[in-house]
Amino acid sequence: MTRFTGIIPPLCTPFRDDFTIDVDSLRRHLDVQLDAGVHGVFVLGSSSEVAFLPDRQRRVVIETTVEHVGGRVPVLAGCIDMTTLRVAEHIRVAEEAGADALVITAPYYTRTHVAEIEQHFRLLHAQATLPIFAYDIPMAVHTKLDREMVLRLAADGVIAGIKDSSGDEAGFSALLLGRQERGLSGFAVFTGSELVVDLALQIGADGAVPGLANVDPRGYVSIWDSVRAGDLAAARREQERLLRLFDITCAAPPERMGRGSAGLGAFKAAMKMRGFIDNPVMAPPQLPLNDEELLRIKGTLTEAGLL
Amino acid sequence: MTRFTGIIPPLCTPFRDDFTIDVDSLRRHLDVQLDAGVHGVFVLGSSSEVAFLPDRQRRVVIETTVEHVGGRVPVLAGCIDMTTLRVAEHIRVAEEAGADALVITAPYYTRTHVAEIEQHFRLLHAQATLPIFAYDIPMAVHTKLDREMVLRLAADGVIAGIKDSSGDEAGFSALLLGRQERGLSGFAVFTGSELVVDLALQIGADGAVPGLANVDPRGYVSIWDSVRAGDLAAARREQERLLRLFDITCAAPPERMGRGSAGLGAFKAAMKMRGFIDNPVMAPPQLPLNDEELLRIKGTLTEAGLL
Amino acid sequence: MTRFTGIIPPLCTPFRDDFTIDVDSLRRHLDVQLDAGVHGVFVLGSSSEVAFLPDRQRRVVIETTVEHVGGRVPVLAGCIDMTTLRVAEHIRVAEEAGADALVITAPYYTRTHVAEIEQHFRLLHAQATLPIFAYDIPMAVHTKLDREMVLRLAADGVIAGIKDSSGDEAGFSALLLGRQERGLSGFAVFTGSELVVDLALQIGADGAVPGLANVDPRGYVSIWDSVRAGDLAAARREQERLLRLFDITCAAPPERMGRGSAGLGAFKAAMKMRGFIDNPVMAPPQLPLNDEELLRIKGTLTEAGLL
Amino acid sequence: MTRFTGIIPPLCTPFRDDFTIDVDSLRRHLDVQLDAGVHGVFVLGSSSEVAFLPDRQRRVVIETTVEHVGGRVPVLAGCIDMTTLRVAEHIRVAEEAGADALVITAPYYTRTHVAEIEQHFRLLHAQATLPIFAYDIPMAVHTKLDREMVLRLAADGVIAGIKDSSGDEAGFSALLLGRQERGLSGFAVFTGSELVVDLALQIGADGAVPGLANVDPRGYVSIWDSVRAGDLAAARREQERLLRLFDITCAAPPERMGRGSAGLGAFKAAMKMRGFIDNPVMAPPQLPLNDEELLRIKGTLTEAGLL
Repeated sequence: MTRFTGIIPPLCTPFRDDFTIDVDSLRRHLDVQLDAGVHGVFVLGSSSEVAFLPDRQRRVVIETTVEHVGGRVPVLAGCIDMTTLRVAEHIRVAEEAGADALVITAPYYTRTHVAEIEQHFRLLHAQATLPIFAYDIPMAVHTKLDREMVLRLAADGVIAGIKDSSGDEAGFSALLLGRQERGLSGFAVFTGSELVVDLALQIGADGAVPGLANVDPRGYVSIWDSVRAGDLAAARREQERLLRLFDITCAAPPERMGRGSAGLGAFKAAMKMRGFIDNPVMAPPQLPLNDEELLRIKGTLTEAGLL
Repeated sequence: MTRFTGIIPPLCTPFRDDFTIDVDSLRRHLDVQLDAGVHGVFVLGSSSEVAFLPDRQRRVVIETTVEHVGGRVPVLAGCIDMTTLRVAEHIRVAEEAGADALVITAPYYTRTHVAEIEQHFRLLHAQATLPIFAYDIPMAVHTKLDREMVLRLAADGVIAGIKDSSGDEAGFSALLLGRQERGLSGFAVFTGSELVVDLALQIGADGAVPGLANVDPRGYVSIWDSVRAGDLAAARREQERLLRLFDITCAAPPERMGRGSAGLGAFKAAMKMRGFIDNPVMAPPQLPLNDEELLRIKGTLTEAGLL
Repeated sequence: MTRFTGIIPPLCTPFRDDFTIDVDSLRRHLDVQLDAGVHGVFVLGSSSEVAFLPDRQRRVVIETTVEHVGGRVPVLAGCIDMTTLRVAEHIRVAEEAGADALVITAPYYTRTHVAEIEQHFRLLHAQATLPIFAYDIPMAVHTKLDREMVLRLAADGVIAGIKDSSGDEAGFSALLLGRQERGLSGFAVFTGSELVVDLALQIGADGAVPGLANVDPRGYVSIWDSVRAGDLAAARREQERLLRLFDITCAAPPERMGRGSAGLGAFKAAMKMRGFIDNPVMAPPQLPLNDEELLRIKGTLTEAGLL
Repeated sequence: MTRFTGIIPPLCTPFRDDFTIDVDSLRRHLDVQLDAGVHGVFVLGSSSEVAFLPDRQRRVVIETTVEHVGGRVPVLAGCIDMTTLRVAEHIRVAEEAGADALVITAPYYTRTHVAEIEQHFRLLHAQATLPIFAYDIPMAVHTKLDREMVLRLAADGVIAGIKDSSGDEAGFSALLLGRQERGLSGFAVFTGSELVVDLALQIGADGAVPGLANVDPRGYVSIWDSVRAGDLAAARREQERLLRLFDITCAAPPERMGRGSAGLGAFKAAMKMRGFIDNPVMAPPQLPLNDEELLRIKGTLTEAGLL
């Protein structure tokens, strides 16, 4: 059995106005998460604005997190870059900083073949000490990880797990079945969606990496607890409550800004409103939410009983 | 009028077996290009495997190139990264190294809005000393630059030029027309396609950035000279010859490898066969061409009179 | 409450060698489905090769089905065409033939705006007598139906239900929630996926339209019965068995034929092997499965206890 | 040499308010086109709203056109439908009505393989009497025709020509080169873009099928004449004028309607303003242009000296 299980939120990264890491807020946010009972944290994932962070800021995030968490739960670190040699540099930093696992996407910017994606993971595994999670996020890298390749890499011990943010729930179900058929019980399968966590857990997922847990970690921990206790109806009620809460990510309309900044902006605004962080600023070139949008978010949080 | 005109090849980056920069080959390749009469060089573009190069290798490429070119032609440097703060770091390096212009894409990995893309260029311009070229390459970044935004940035002096690798020739034609209508004659418009250079020049482009010029720079310089001399028929004959030569990029079939490695692998193999560089190795995780594919490339080069 | 609930298979269409409808096989297949306890049938959906059928063959399919079913279960009829006026003609035929509901996609071939898609459904509703199901199938029509538009059309009584074949399970979950919040309990929500039927039913879907039910209708009826009896574990076991059975759709590799013909070819081959139809031929230009592929399908059916 | 050469506009279809064909306007529009010197007409192409026309309206369009043209120029007829058997029905109608050639796309709605697309054309050729043009329009059918397949079908006499509306000008150039290398001089290659007609003709295209010729046929005939007379500068000036005129297709913004109705609506509005047709109405569910948008179109026409 894998030691990676449960609710592992992909943490947002609090900034100061100059876009350096607000270390105090990061620590406070980690406390909020740990107090809520999360089973791990994932730093430098897409929700962290990893794509916006210069390398030295990325390092501050991992070091601060590892030091503050102090081994209470595992720390997964995203090593997000375009290709093998660049990712290898992030791996070195994450390993030096004391992370517990590495999270790696398919190559992007370049147009690759499935054989090259497989090569990418094998070469990185050969260099890394820590276990590797494959990060399936076609929205960002414009490639869906091939299921057969994933199972092959799992069988060969190249990857220790997967975070599936592809939104392809039928494929996710087939992956779980493939894992079972091939006896790969040590291979950890996580859903990256915040919207169907109860169902994913129910059909055998080891856990979830829900971005919305930045705003409401207790909700997701409660789903986890309900599913383990066999109370699927309670899990569903909680998931539906969180689905409604997810509406905050639509406060800013698509005519006005990208879906990335609308979503992350809403998370950070809500985290600020709930006192988890001091400053909801996002890294450039993302646009800020306006007053009307913030008011709508406040209303949704209030309805959800979170303010 | 812009000082950036003519044939400005996007240079491939020669490696040693350990994927460090083969500085000797890079210098030799620069000599080949300058001897052929190119009017500038573009380093750290997509053809350079910029997406595969760690930052310190990128720095070696710019420094070597600036030093070796010695001001004979302008050196454009790609500052290719996902978002504003990360690109800003590459700008600093390029400016310190003595490049003459910066080439910058739309953000990627993240999902942005046109207003955020515009913000990206404006913020970077505010920080940069050197002129900025927008790099329109939807194949890599999955966003096409909006024409109105480009013309607005040009009118405001934010960008000094554009390299259009979008393959949208009707849009390219409309961009040239828009430039003319708004009196932006100082704004440099380059095509990034190697396949319609004669036509692009004929309708008013300031130049071309053809990847295939790594293999046959004289061919492209000859198109430039013919068009300027008004001999469109000669330009077309040469372009057709180069279109046939471009077949080398299909030597490896899509079932076997990505279109990126098939194309760059062919360029590097041909550069090695012609003696421009010592080692055709590509950065991981790209797959190498096999013997049969290399033989096919050799045949095409021979037919083209290049061996 | 909607009268449309339960397992409503999208029937494949058996042909003779000249691609006319094999009416005897169609009747036999209907008997198989009704004997298995399905709660409705959907003819002229994507699985029926509706895109391949001339209008007069479409008419034979509806008329035969309506006559043979004889009111025992509802008959839904696809009115699949590019735009409003053309769809209107199919509606007239379906209504004359005695269908119970109409199934209609977004416009395709043309590039439409969400306001035009909404207009499409409103105009067709104004002309139709029968209830309309929206058919959300971006794989075929290259547009995903907007959730707000769907709920608006449901609230206004324009559409009586939806068949969601988009594969977006988080969106499906949000649609169910939206229906509940707006008190639209008469609006029927069906999943079009065969791979997550148990989960869809569990979270509130009214039913499923699973293509694989052409091969194993009892399996899907059993999932329906288990979920209604509250035995989610039994439902999951059955769904997992059917997920394994779905492997037949991959017997022919993507290098050899389109995913459409690989999937439909497998369904029809299995239907023939199980004695439901006489002739597994597919309409042109689809390629037939070869002997090796058929053998693999036979093996999977045997393992599944269906032969 | 092919008998199909020159400017062959894809005619818009004038409607009455009840969306039946306005036969008088269609005849008047044909007169406008023939008087302008076009070398053929293409009915039932995408610009004709073929996707919106019921079959009996399609028949009226062909019959009216063939009868009114009376053999003065060739009449090409689109046989636009999803798959082989359905296209075959349109072929029968077109042949009965006396068209001179058939224009056929790749299959759509269904997901096909290149081998199935090839099969599609071969089967239709086996049934047809008239020459077949392949219609490469990925924007509508979501498949780009494979160049090798096109050349193979040309070599085997399956297709007599191609209308390339893919916007891939480098691919168009390579197709012309492939035709030349394989000695297929009888294979007619047409560009379907209205924006680079001069360049397409200059590099060897046999003609153009420009939608904008509905509004200004003389302009395109003038480009044709200039290129044949070797006056490329005059051809370019005219093309640039028409590029500016093409702005009418952006009068309605993308926030308000689909790009299809914005473009066709502009063509039809301009045709009405110029007196070519009586009624600019478009088939449902397309939205009409509003007064402000019509005013903008009027302005552009006036500037272009067309009013």
